[in-house]
Amino acid sequence: MHAADANDRVARAVDGGRLQARLEGLAAFGAAVPGTHRGGVARQALTAQELLARRWLAAAFGGRPGYAVGIDEAANVYIRRQGSDAGAPPVLTGSHADTQPLGGWLDGAYGVAAGLEVFDALDAAGVRTRRAIETVMWTNEEGSRFAPGLMGSVAYVSPGRLAEFRDARDARGVTFGQACADAREDFATAARTAGWQWFDTPLARPLHAYIEAHIEQGPIMEARGLQVGCVTAIQGVRWFRVTVPGRSAHAGTTPASARDDAQAKAIALAHVLLDYGRAQEDDRLRLTIGRWQCRPDSINTIADQVVFTVDTRHPDARVLDALQARLQALLPPGATVDTLQHKPTVAFDAGLVALARQACRALGLAHDDMLSGAFHDAMPLAGFCPTAMLFAPSIAGISHHPEEHTGIEDLTACTRALAWCLAELAGNADAAPALFTPPRKESSRCKRYPALRRSPITANPSA
Amino acid sequence: MHAADANDRVARAVDGGRLQARLEGLAAFGAAVPGTHRGGVARQALTAQELLARRWLAAAFGGRPGYAVGIDEAANVYIRRQGSDAGAPPVLTGSHADTQPLGGWLDGAYGVAAGLEVFDALDAAGVRTRRAIETVMWTNEEGSRFAPGLMGSVAYVSPGRLAEFRDARDARGVTFGQACADAREDFATAARTAGWQWFDTPLARPLHAYIEAHIEQGPIMEARGLQVGCVTAIQGVRWFRVTVPGRSAHAGTTPASARDDAQAKAIALAHVLLDYGRAQEDDRLRLTIGRWQCRPDSINTIADQVVFTVDTRHPDARVLDALQARLQALLPPGATVDTLQHKPTVAFDAGLVALARQACRALGLAHDDMLSGAFHDAMPLAGFCPTAMLFAPSIAGISHHPEEHTGIEDLTACTRALAWCLAELAGNADAAPALFTPPRKESSRCKRYPALRRSPITANPSA
Repeated sequence: MHAADANDRVARAVDGGRLQARLEGLAAFGAAVPGTHRGGVARQALTAQELLARRWLAAAFGGRPGYAVGIDEAANVYIRRQGSDAGAPPVLTGSHADTQPLGGWLDGAYGVAAGLEVFDALDAAGVRTRRAIETVMWTNEEGSRFAPGLMGSVAYVSPGRLAEFRDARDARGVTFGQACADAREDFATAARTAGWQWFDTPLARPLHAYIEAHIEQGPIMEARGLQVGCVTAIQGVRWFRVTVPGRSAHAGTTPASARDDAQAKAIALAHVLLDYGRAQEDDRLRLTIGRWQCRPDSINTIADQVVFTVDTRHPDARVLDALQARLQALLPPGATVDTLQHKPTVAFDAGLVALARQACRALGLAHDDMLSGAFHDAMPLAGFCPTAMLFAPSIAGISHHPEEHTGIEDLTACTRALAWCLAELAGNADAAPALFTPPRKESSRCKRYPALRRSPITANPSA
Repeated sequence: MHAADANDRVARAVDGGRLQARLEGLAAFGAAVPGTHRGGVARQALTAQELLARRWLAAAFGGRPGYAVGIDEAANVYIRRQGSDAGAPPVLTGSHADTQPLGGWLDGAYGVAAGLEVFDALDAAGVRTRRAIETVMWTNEEGSRFAPGLMGSVAYVSPGRLAEFRDARDARGVTFGQACADAREDFATAARTAGWQWFDTPLARPLHAYIEAHIEQGPIMEARGLQVGCVTAIQGVRWFRVTVPGRSAHAGTTPASARDDAQAKAIALAHVLLDYGRAQEDDRLRLTIGRWQCRPDSINTIADQVVFTVDTRHPDARVLDALQARLQALLPPGATVDTLQHKPTVAFDAGLVALARQACRALGLAHDDMLSGAFHDAMPLAGFCPTAMLFAPSIAGISHHPEEHTGIEDLTACTRALAWCLAELAGNADAAPALFTPPRKESSRCKRYPALRRSPITANPSA
């Protein structure tokens, strides 16, 4: 049998009903309204709900012949479908099982469920691969319980960062280190009790490739009628905090000529900045003033300080350079700009993106190249091994919200593309070599992922 | 002796050292930094600090021959210097002894200390008046402990309002009614123990006139080198709450064309409104955006709602009408405006303002007519009896702040003008009739003061 035929067979063995059942089962862990995902899901990182959810997902495979489970030092959980070549670096897929404090049912969950559905499809199709395939649940992607986000995937590619993450505390004072230790103990006990196959999972294990399925969390694919987005890059992002000082005075007694009104100055500055953004007429430019805090925030007192934030993103660093220069030039006397985050655009592996396109063509799926506007675990992975992402559309672009939703047909279509890619990347156990041969990138394995900057104003660290 | 000579004599008997000592003694009750008023004063309405301060001020006169003290149902405290004609309605002066949570040492305190200094000056000059003169300490002018402000003076002119005020609760759940009862008991016990002369003080007692000295709380007088402001009116004020809706979405994934960004819309609206205000080139127009709250106030989430407030003031209602119409016309679809407060301009008694000018001319004080930009207890009183105010300059216009300050020379000058007016209004006990004869306004005595509108967003109710 030709390898591409096997890929097709696995892709077509993807079952929407089974995928939906697993997603709904997963949503039950933390469902705000029992019995439905429509009230949103509260399953923050390493809470009891998330630990139970991970165990429930692992339980479907831990005892199945040809599977094994593991958990690493950062409490990332792996479910492994063994390959015929035990020494070959595995192909990794997956995402995260944690949510925002009240998030939707698909963000992260979909990528995990899609990876596991591919396992079921491989089993149903009777396809054995040369390389092992693993579905990972990265720890604390959202960053809403412990800041910053992406801890599990960053620790995976840069194990040295874990020591620093361990000291992060949640709102109740629990450290990430303690929560990790508890999660590892919990998972190991469950595995021992159930007799699951176990395998060692050191951080920074060599990987053949990483491919993550995720909902778009934006409105573009729905508007364009796309089923699959082949993500070429995660666009660069810069976060600024702008502080505009003024002088507090009585709103009734102080004439305009005697005022130094921080609010009026901040409004003028923000207005011109947003106007500049609009004037670019570039729909790839994202410009958001998300936070605005004035002091003393009293109806009848002129503000003595306004602090607002600017979140700006674009794949081309020159566009962001120009916007940042413009912001600096617009500052009134005394005003300051602090950079809270500065992440360059992360391009995904061109060969892997081409493979994703090939899968969509083979399966007849409406697809196009996409940029990711949000961060994902694939961002740190991209500096470690060939990496790409597949997007499924999000209805109305809603995410991080109980109304987050995607129809099962679209979720299934994207999972088929994922199955095709994973089967291709893992290779048939006894057939021709895989089409995709990643470049040798051994030197990148220990590449340090750049430090995440943390905002002194408690920001939602999931970007 | 001619009456005007007596007025001069009393005015020149005003003693800056004595005034300063009383102000510093008063500031000790609630001083944030013991031994100085420079750290600000925390003496909110009917707190232990304010009750002690009022007793300390009363103690200097309660036992002095020719004086009596009283407290009414709203816990307003009166210190009365008897006149020769016990049946003639008294002349009232004073202000309030309560402060903002951390206020300055002169707001309110100055008007009380100035009234008591006039008593000392009258005594020092040996002047006996026909009418009694009373210095009042109105209860809860600031409104920061119990909302709304001006409770004591409003209850005085409209006793029917007291029942409603009694239910107001402070942040710890204490009702204004309970605090009033405790204050009355405290003051009566002190008076009984010390053997102070006592007099009955029903609400809405007829008054010959009310004249209140106060710091300007604005920068105009200092800038113009004025010693005394003859306040002709309290300018009209309107407070609006503007609510701009949007749709929450991810800042990274949502292109400009798919956004409904409440923050961007609110910034554009506020910018055009402030521009309109500037274009009027009318320094009497006050336009302040004091509060600004966005939701969810997250760096990387497009705001789904912004609420901001507009405080606007002008003596001419047509100017405010035009501004309000402009605001309405600028609203984007779905945005709303709520009126939180709408107070027309309150004009003071023309005869009394003329008397204030006459006092300044007689004493050679740099003076001019002024508008009050802030509310004062004189506002409700103006609907009840002939009323006016005298302003002393505020350094840099700072008020409601520890740095609130006025030099003792300016405080003394304004107190001299007050003394001149009070002596004139009270009349010499055995000389020619006073220059000032107020119109008969018996019918206005029970005029209801318009209800204060309360903001659902907890505003600083002292305007």
